[in-house]
Amino acid sequence: MREVIIVGASAAGLRCACRLARLKPRWKITVLEARQTFSYAACGLPYVLSGEIGEAEALRRTDYRVIRDAQYFADYKRVTVLTGHRVAALDVSGRRLEVRGPNGAAMLPWDELVLATGARAITLKGQPRDSRVGAFHSLDDLERLHSGLANGEIQRVALIGAGPVGCELAEAFRSLWGAEVVIVEASPAPLPSALDPDLAASVAGQIRANGVDLLVNSPVTGIDADDDGVTITAGDESVRAQAVVVAIGVEPVVELARQAGAKLAACGAIAVDERLATSLPGIWAVGDCVAVRHAVTGEHSYMPLGSLANRQGRSLANILAGRADHFPPAAGAVAIKVFDWNVASVGCTTAEARSHGLPVRAARTFAQDRALYWPEVKDIQLKLLYNPESRRVLGVQAAGEGEVVKRVDVATQLITRGATLEEFAHLEHAHAPPFAPAMEPLAVAAMIAQNQEDGIEAASPQEISTAGSLLDVRSIEEAAESPVSAGYVSRIPLDELISRLEEVEKSTELVVCGRGTRSAEAVRLLLNNGIRARYLSGGLRWLAAMRHKSDDS
Amino acid sequence: MREVIIVGASAAGLRCACRLARLKPRWKITVLEARQTFSYAACGLPYVLSGEIGEAEALRRTDYRVIRDAQYFADYKRVTVLTGHRVAALDVSGRRLEVRGPNGAAMLPWDELVLATGARAITLKGQPRDSRVGAFHSLDDLERLHSGLANGEIQRVALIGAGPVGCELAEAFRSLWGAEVVIVEASPAPLPSALDPDLAASVAGQIRANGVDLLVNSPVTGIDADDDGVTITAGDESVRAQAVVVAIGVEPVVELARQAGAKLAACGAIAVDERLATSLPGIWAVGDCVAVRHAVTGEHSYMPLGSLANRQGRSLANILAGRADHFPPAAGAVAIKVFDWNVASVGCTTAEARSHGLPVRAARTFAQDRALYWPEVKDIQLKLLYNPESRRVLGVQAAGEGEVVKRVDVATQLITRGATLEEFAHLEHAHAPPFAPAMEPLAVAAMIAQNQEDGIEAASPQEISTAGSLLDVRSIEEAAESPVSAGYVSRIPLDELISRLEEVEKSTELVVCGRGTRSAEAVRLLLNNGIRARYLSGGLRWLAAMRHKSDDS
Repeated sequence: MREVIIVGASAAGLRCACRLARLKPRWKITVLEARQTFSYAACGLPYVLSGEIGEAEALRRTDYRVIRDAQYFADYKRVTVLTGHRVAALDVSGRRLEVRGPNGAAMLPWDELVLATGARAITLKGQPRDSRVGAFHSLDDLERLHSGLANGEIQRVALIGAGPVGCELAEAFRSLWGAEVVIVEASPAPLPSALDPDLAASVAGQIRANGVDLLVNSPVTGIDADDDGVTITAGDESVRAQAVVVAIGVEPVVELARQAGAKLAACGAIAVDERLATSLPGIWAVGDCVAVRHAVTGEHSYMPLGSLANRQGRSLANILAGRADHFPPAAGAVAIKVFDWNVASVGCTTAEARSHGLPVRAARTFAQDRALYWPEVKDIQLKLLYNPESRRVLGVQAAGEGEVVKRVDVATQLITRGATLEEFAHLEHAHAPPFAPAMEPLAVAAMIAQNQEDGIEAASPQEISTAGSLLDVRSIEEAAESPVSAGYVSRIPLDELISRLEEVEKSTELVVCGRGTRSAEAVRLLLNNGIRARYLSGGLRWLAAMRHKSDDS
Repeated sequence: MREVIIVGASAAGLRCACRLARLKPRWKITVLEARQTFSYAACGLPYVLSGEIGEAEALRRTDYRVIRDAQYFADYKRVTVLTGHRVAALDVSGRRLEVRGPNGAAMLPWDELVLATGARAITLKGQPRDSRVGAFHSLDDLERLHSGLANGEIQRVALIGAGPVGCELAEAFRSLWGAEVVIVEASPAPLPSALDPDLAASVAGQIRANGVDLLVNSPVTGIDADDDGVTITAGDESVRAQAVVVAIGVEPVVELARQAGAKLAACGAIAVDERLATSLPGIWAVGDCVAVRHAVTGEHSYMPLGSLANRQGRSLANILAGRADHFPPAAGAVAIKVFDWNVASVGCTTAEARSHGLPVRAARTFAQDRALYWPEVKDIQLKLLYNPESRRVLGVQAAGEGEVVKRVDVATQLITRGATLEEFAHLEHAHAPPFAPAMEPLAVAAMIAQNQEDGIEAASPQEISTAGSLLDVRSIEEAAESPVSAGYVSRIPLDELISRLEEVEKSTELVVCGRGTRSAEAVRLLLNNGIRARYLSGGLRWLAAMRHKSDDS
């Protein structure tokens, strides 16, 4: 018999507790939790606010309709959860801790201590203590905003941060409540930790198309609450709102770990090895308080993701029970619904790769998610980042109305295994017209990258503004329908290019077409005939998506 | 300069020709094609019949609205396609062939010969030559059926074979035309090459629920056409229809390869190495006429799939152009839309694994495809097959209204890399409530398998009929709502099990619940207390899906 104390009834902590109780029924397993309400799916909170989920209780219910409270864990899982219990002090060498609860303080001994203390919302410097300014991280936050919207007090909301939570909340406030929403983001584009700016610009277009005022490059310098509302200052800009949600990310809760003397990673989270052991004997850590080994960079990285937390909890139960298990490196796969768009990414962004000293190049495809003749086919923008020296794929990002999460899930399996462009180009997929094109866009992106390394050079969408001379190889009809609005443009449709080679301007810098396919072929044809040019990566459609509505701002 | 002749303007042949023309612009590349119309997406044919695709031309059009005919390939791809040209004889040692076309016969020399002869529909023994009996493999077949339906001649159709084409056609005939449809299948369940019988039974339920008469275990013994229609005899059964589609699969077209003396694989298709070379120097083969190395069995296997054909074509172009490339083993990932259900599978079925002498066990999960509280969450039935000795995953099959293709695509990456249960259990995925649950069903299936190897034994759904004594651990309400209709059933809800252990019948064989989760936990609890039982894999809901409507037949 061993005594295991788990601090924090988070997803990771509870998953660990429940499995350990099954594997080791004679062990005494206690979960200490400061809050009264726990084990709700926090990822679902924005969708309660948006009305897509009818009631917050749904986030705490099992599929057989039982509420996950302390009674549930006692009866169904044989796990003791002590709510309202806060750990006051840790005696590491004595393997015991002081806990304070409703009935006073007590010393509890442990054989194994699991820190599952989770994360908390980051607050802004100088953030006022005001009920109208807060995070969106808990049921209380939901309740506060929900009642303000319901009673009409909140008609205009400012969101600080265009990360996943900011994007999800923008939709919630707009769609159900019709509130005016302004997002104030410090970076040049939304979702900066998941997307490169050229893809994020398309997402920004979506956000704006849905009536949200999105301010970028706007680091907040002040928040001031007065009787009538709240004023946010971001450089020269000033934004008024009746409620402000600070959604600039979360940070690991590590006070207890620090007090115990456990080693922290450079990212600030608790350092654990692949067996989820901290630097201290008998002390383990799981969930949003730990640093995860990044599959691409090899470094400790902070990835507060529910999917990882759940798996860590199960893994640690296995490890504590003496079974062979370990938690492998992760690539940080994320998915975010942004109004009607699906957005997902995995691995490094360009900025992240560079910050780790990795050489990085990009391939883009403006693809279709199903057979092009399938009635419900949708566009997706897909960007693949790779190391041109090792040819390893470093990251994949995708966004659009179409199916992008599948591509990122597939890419995740390959990236976590160090796959090269060659492996991506040969990835196998289940093809039928309602589900995918015969050539999978993810593989096509890798083929584009292979062609680039073979001399068919792509220019990023941003480079069109500095290109002097363009060659448009679309048909006359297409060019007339949506003319290129940049630089000096000459036109030769691809099917006439070989016979009209002498007409090609020697100064041609950039070849353009709709999706980037024909222009890449044209570049190869020109190269085969001694003319060197680049093509517009992702085509004019990628460019149009980036510019969508964003010119209005 | 080299001369390359490609026989067959199939997806593989054309893909090879086009890329090779780009990589080697000075080479002479000729594609010989017996038909006049080619390069249409044959996978889309059923959806033209169903009306989901408005016109057959859509299957031949590029995304920039150009029809892919010989002119297109000449102008855009600089590839010569000679239609109406049939290869009459092959002179292998002389590296030349005799071709007969509209302008008579000619001898053409080659340096490299590519066989891309494709596949043809298999005909039944004794299949009558009658315009009302035929395959569904070409534009002509589509035209014939379409006009019969449109002019009212066809109101009742018989489909022989419940494979992918049979299932897709059943929907086409029912949904748009309201025709009476009967499917006559020799195997015990539909989609026998993709699904095990317990999952196929659920698909059978879907087919029947959509008003299709599905006969299984019914090998056709005769087809007789008379003035009024066609009669199919299958054992004691006799089926009348105005049109019969024989959809029992395709076979590789290998006459030319055989004549040349190229080695054929045991499956009957052309044997090629990983460079797509046949056994004869200078002769290569790609597409539906070749055998592919199976990633699980390691054997040559026949996988006539458009996704593989396209990649092979590109690979061979790379290889012929002197670039490093090879075509890796494939796991045979397929996806099929069956009315409103999505069906997909990869790797071996149980029968296929056994036929290769592989030990095989199964794990099932009746899962939800998104967060359980997401309004659009749908059920999926997922079955994972593994080798209990090596712990390698051998195959994954999934079906349901929910997102199954994503899971199979992810599984494909892992299976082709020889992944074990442990790697599946730790697969990383992008999680957000609209896209996936926090615990990915594919990983959960692997965890169920791990638990099974840890002594938590699952019984297959079929075994319930022979189980003597059952224990239902659902709540009183659930049990009242949908009582178990099998054997002798005692009831103890899971949350009361530990306190009522003495009530558990010593003879309990099978523990049951809704989805198989609680019953598995109950089995472990019983095992921890010295009582050995198994649980119903996939739960009562899997069983209900299998029985859905099929009792009526």
